[in-house]
Amino acid sequence: MPAEIERKFLVRDDSWRQQAGPGNPYRQGYFGGTRRASIRVRISGDEGRLNIKSMTLGVERQEYEYPVPVDEAREMLDTLCERPFVEKVRYEVPVGDHVWEVDVFEGDNAGLVVAEVELNDPDEGFEMPAWAGEEVSHDPKYYNINLVKHPYRAWK
Amino acid sequence: MPAEIERKFLVRDDSWRQQAGPGNPYRQGYFGGTRRASIRVRISGDEGRLNIKSMTLGVERQEYEYPVPVDEAREMLDTLCERPFVEKVRYEVPVGDHVWEVDVFEGDNAGLVVAEVELNDPDEGFEMPAWAGEEVSHDPKYYNINLVKHPYRAWK
Repeated sequence: MPAEIERKFLVRDDSWRQQAGPGNPYRQGYFGGTRRASIRVRISGDEGRLNIKSMTLGVERQEYEYPVPVDEAREMLDTLCERPFVEKVRYEVPVGDHVWEVDVFEGDNAGLVVAEVELNDPDEGFEMPAWAGEEVSHDPKYYNINLVKHPYRAWK
Repeated sequence: MPAEIERKFLVRDDSWRQQAGPGNPYRQGYFGGTRRASIRVRISGDEGRLNIKSMTLGVERQEYEYPVPVDEAREMLDTLCERPFVEKVRYEVPVGDHVWEVDVFEGDNAGLVVAEVELNDPDEGFEMPAWAGEEVSHDPKYYNINLVKHPYRAWK
């Protein structure tokens, strides 16, 4: 069963930018109301992707991802997905043996910066960079699907 | 925008079987709770498909369909889709210039038989076979997604 094992952390400062590659803008929307899974359409550059993830909490989630034509992804976003979209710029940052992903959110989630490291096993060790802060893997408010209805702007 | 234009009819009798090809068993499930779209996983033989359709009523609906590995389709059905599944055997029946699809439902929907003809244009003409009865294109209770929660068995 395809699984995503990911640990998610807040980001203390901007020092990760020194090791970061170029940012990739992501625009993504969700088919609202689903119960057991979150279903997402994402556009990045000229790539469209449909992603289905179990709604289980924690570091390990069942995940399926399929490429879709970008024009169809755009139509699904525009006509079938909930508003607002989640918009962010993703940066890859190599740290030790892993490549972290740092997501810098925009729009209603501007100000939120989250870093993720994908693992092959929930118990796998990894190098913790100094710029990574509190772990939020188990906090549902950081799930991107939850940033649609309860964006960072409204947390304060 | 990919559209499905389909008119749906009840079936009066079994005479369509004389022209029918072999039946293909379909097993399909839905990601429950979605609002603007129905999202379906279908298995037929060793083929898996993910299908997204707008929830608009009537003969014309926006539709996207993508092949997925059958083992992933099976996992999504088993772990992420709502119960019960919709099970039916689909038969293709040539009528004039069109190929009709006759769905013979099973399980909680046993007894329900529905015929569909797919058109290129909502106003396109087609030959109406004698075995096709009342049109139900605009009746949401015949939407397969609605047969999960309100199966035919419960209609009487």
